[in-house]
Amino acid sequence: MKLHQDTLVIPTRGRGTIEITASLHKIAAASGVEQGICHVFVHHTSASLLIGENADPGVRRDLERFLARLVPDGDPLFEHTLEGPDDMPAHVRSILTATTLTIPIRARACDLGTWQGVYLYEHRTEWHRRRITVNILGE
Amino acid sequence: MKLHQDTLVIPTRGRGTIEITASLHKIAAASGVEQGICHVFVHHTSASLLIGENADPGVRRDLERFLARLVPDGDPLFEHTLEGPDDMPAHVRSILTATTLTIPIRARACDLGTWQGVYLYEHRTEWHRRRITVNILGE
Amino acid sequence: MKLHQDTLVIPTRGRGTIEITASLHKIAAASGVEQGICHVFVHHTSASLLIGENADPGVRRDLERFLARLVPDGDPLFEHTLEGPDDMPAHVRSILTATTLTIPIRARACDLGTWQGVYLYEHRTEWHRRRITVNILGE
Repeated sequence: MKLHQDTLVIPTRGRGTIEITASLHKIAAASGVEQGICHVFVHHTSASLLIGENADPGVRRDLERFLARLVPDGDPLFEHTLEGPDDMPAHVRSILTATTLTIPIRARACDLGTWQGVYLYEHRTEWHRRRITVNILGE
Repeated sequence: MKLHQDTLVIPTRGRGTIEITASLHKIAAASGVEQGICHVFVHHTSASLLIGENADPGVRRDLERFLARLVPDGDPLFEHTLEGPDDMPAHVRSILTATTLTIPIRARACDLGTWQGVYLYEHRTEWHRRRITVNILGE
Repeated sequence: MKLHQDTLVIPTRGRGTIEITASLHKIAAASGVEQGICHVFVHHTSASLLIGENADPGVRRDLERFLARLVPDGDPLFEHTLEGPDDMPAHVRSILTATTLTIPIRARACDLGTWQGVYLYEHRTEWHRRRITVNILGE
């Protein structure tokens, strides 16, 4: 059994998704693992991970609209507002999506479905640098 | 350390949950792993995985009602409508539930709580065939 | 590759979050694993796991308010009401947060971001004892 640990640092440009599928495939190939699992973790509470439809960008726009309606910026419900009207919504959006994902490895690649892409989802309106750790375990 | 990889293909009959707990226990037993982890992954963006209450089917009916209210089919918010009024809601439901689950293995079985069952959740109204990969790692 | 399995039993005092980060670091240190993954699983369907902001308790109060509004106790939508008005909402809250988390291990500790804490989230209003299994895999 092998273990391979790697890090991605992704600059974001405000709210929105950034595809990281190709980076994960590269790490999987470099790991030498033929089959096993690929664990992905984002070290933040206002950016998250998403496995989403990768063909029509409209799907991600719709998801963004849905989250903006469900968890509106500046909602008077929230008391944690010191860091801006988008901060507490960013925490809630992160929790409703995912901080941690695990993907199977088969034939030295992340075994995603045809329409599955992996995305970093920035929930803050300002630019950030986001750290992601990838661990691959297998044979 | 052992690794055991297996695949489930599950036919679905429109929106609703299908229990896969017994299939996971079978794969766990076949793996020869005494303790470790069982990773489950669904290769789709409009069907998802769920760990839910396994005693009263009313719980799953209530969850379905809750999701149908939260993410209504045909919501005018959505632009991605080419594949039908249930398609974009299916993507959102998948993201709110889970594409990837990991369950502990103890005594050669998935160590679920007394009231926990594992379900494939079909979110489309049409029938589909859904692929699931299971990876068991442990000793 | 090493495997280390441990159990936490956490008494809860009604709805709210209890931080378990320190307990996870202790288990990570005891495992002797230098790098790898730490899998955390809660064996219940009305308590869940959360990776959340650990500095301002207002963030967790806001999250609680958000969930209380999104999934109100006693919602007439629900038929599963035998165990009380908070029972079905507890199941939905568990599904919207997480039953299973995986965290990277680096330098013999859970490699969390500066502002990330791991919490058990009790969703029932009564006191409970909640069982959590932790598995650490790595080198």
